Amino acid sequence: MKKVLIIGIGAGDPDHLTLEAVKAIAAADVFFVLGKGPADGSGETTAHDLVRLRRDIISAHAREPYRVVEARDPERDRTGDAYAEAVVDWRSRRADVCERLVLDELGDDQTGAILVWGDPALYDSTLAVVEEVLARGSARFHHVVIPGVSSVSAMAARHRISLTRVARPLHVTTGRRLARAIGTGTGPAGGPDEFGDVVVMLDAHCAFADLPDADDVDIYWGAYLGTPDEILISGRVHDVAERIREAREQARARKGWIMDTYLLRRAPETGERTRGRTGTA
Amino acid sequence: MKKVLIIGIGAGDPDHLTLEAVKAIAAADVFFVLGKGPADGSGETTAHDLVRLRRDIISAHAREPYRVVEARDPERDRTGDAYAEAVVDWRSRRADVCERLVLDELGDDQTGAILVWGDPALYDSTLAVVEEVLARGSARFHHVVIPGVSSVSAMAARHRISLTRVARPLHVTTGRRLARAIGTGTGPAGGPDEFGDVVVMLDAHCAFADLPDADDVDIYWGAYLGTPDEILISGRVHDVAERIREAREQARARKGWIMDTYLLRRAPETGERTRGRTGTA
Ligand SMILES: C[S@@+](CC[C@H](N)C(=O)[O-])C[C@H]1O[C@@H](n2cnc3c(N)ncnc32)[C@H](O)[C@@H]1O
Ligand SMILES: C[S@@+](CC[C@H](N)C(=O)[O-])C[C@H]1O[C@@H](n2cnc3c(N)ncnc32)[C@H](O)[C@@H]1O
Repeated sequence: MKKVLIIGIGAGDPDHLTLEAVKAIAAADVFFVLGKGPADGSGETTAHDLVRLRRDIISAHAREPYRVVEARDPERDRTGDAYAEAVVDWRSRRADVCERLVLDELGDDQTGAILVWGDPALYDSTLAVVEEVLARGSARFHHVVIPGVSSVSAMAARHRISLTRVARPLHVTTGRRLARAIGTGTGPAGGPDEFGDVVVMLDAHCAFADLPDADDVDIYWGAYLGTPDEILISGRVHDVAERIREAREQARARKGWIMDTYLLRRAPETGERTRGRTGTA
Repeated sequence: MKKVLIIGIGAGDPDHLTLEAVKAIAAADVFFVLGKGPADGSGETTAHDLVRLRRDIISAHAREPYRVVEARDPERDRTGDAYAEAVVDWRSRRADVCERLVLDELGDDQTGAILVWGDPALYDSTLAVVEEVLARGSARFHHVVIPGVSSVSAMAARHRISLTRVARPLHVTTGRRLARAIGTGTGPAGGPDEFGDVVVMLDAHCAFADLPDADDVDIYWGAYLGTPDEILISGRVHDVAERIREAREQARARKGWIMDTYLLRRAPETGERTRGRTGTA
């Protein structure tokens, strides 16, 4: 039976590899590397650096004989407004590529590996792609998932903060979603006002800068976490929003891409420590 | 200057250690091991197995000469209803212990290490304890946090699922909070009805079993993840709730403690792929 390992590699620091990931990489016969992929919400491709990090990890830990098969990642339609539909369509074209790779490049009883940025369970489509390939039924294989350190854990560690506060929830959302919630202002805002602690990923447009009533909201922002380009900024949103925006623009202009993640945390009201801000739980 | 490393060690599998954690353990002169701690919400102490795993990790990766200093973890008041206050009080007594350790057991220019279960940023008080010690000002040290694979990432990996769906948020909460929300039934439920995808930790009472309208809610449940005792159960909540409850009770009776985590996922309504269930974003 063919075997495919989906290996979380951490979000930038090669030392965030787990021992399990190191062993899995050493056990693989073939590595499938997709040439480019959108790593943030902006439509930029972060091709070079990210492919290079994957290649470095492979050459550090893979055991001969092994092969690296690079495939073109299909382009995603970034023109329309229908973000989710575009992603679903893109996923299906990725499944075509993945199916081909397993059928043509992986021998029976061989082990293929796909290195996934961060933790495979957070805003990554690899698992859905693999499920789609399996559902089609033509390429048959067994798959194993190896968890990794997410960019969210890396962000919290670098700021030396806990993401959760005692007895309170943590909400993880996208920049797009947060911006839409701020824009409409109706219903659960999806922001720190609603949940107290909100992690935002895939934000290409600094949604935090438009937060209403942000006087008592702290932001812990990190870009290129775990890499030599890492930038960390934290403080009250209204004090640091402009600094973050500038740092972000400069870095992006210089490197050609950026990946950033942040926590928004609203200070608890006095005496509100055990109740949620929404007063419900 | 004294240095304290707060090292995420993963949530059960010694191979979930990262290379960074391995290096940090090798760099430490002194390991601070707290004798017992509540690892779930139930008030059980998971002392033996968890302390043993930490000791095994230390002896596998620490470099001579090193010392292990065990300290009694203060008991937490589990009698009252004021969960958060009890935790805050317990935290402050833990800070007393931690302060003593740094003052008495760590030489100048030495490096101390605290091994933290899973990822230090998720429902763990070590960072808050360290902040409290620093704020007191008597023990002075520099601290570094090393992220780890959380039990949540481990749960998702073992079920081979993504925690997030395209363009949708993920809510992380506690069993206590979910149960309270179900009980009152007012305001944002804090459950899958509200958010679609909800990770529940620290649940000593199978809150999922009381979910209203759970006909289209899937549960992905995992206990003792990453350990030889690992149990995985998934399916529609109403199909598997009883099986989970029984497996949980049996395992807990046999081992004396249990740690479990789960994802609740409500199937999206047709055509609802891009909008949240709450219709807000
Ligand atoms: C497609 S998602 C993949 C997330 C990944 N699976 C993880 O666990 O971190 C990409 C988003 O993750 C975040 N991200 C990934 N790597 C990052 C890094 N090194 N620094 C900051 N943010 C990062 C950013 O929010 C980015 O938009
Ligand atoms: C005090 S919290 C600590 C969480 C930890 N920092 C992490 O990142 O996983 C303890 C809770 O984590 C979850 N947990 C920790 N280890 C686990 C394991 N091996 N299997 C299942 N759940 C686990 C359970 O929900 C438990 O109640």
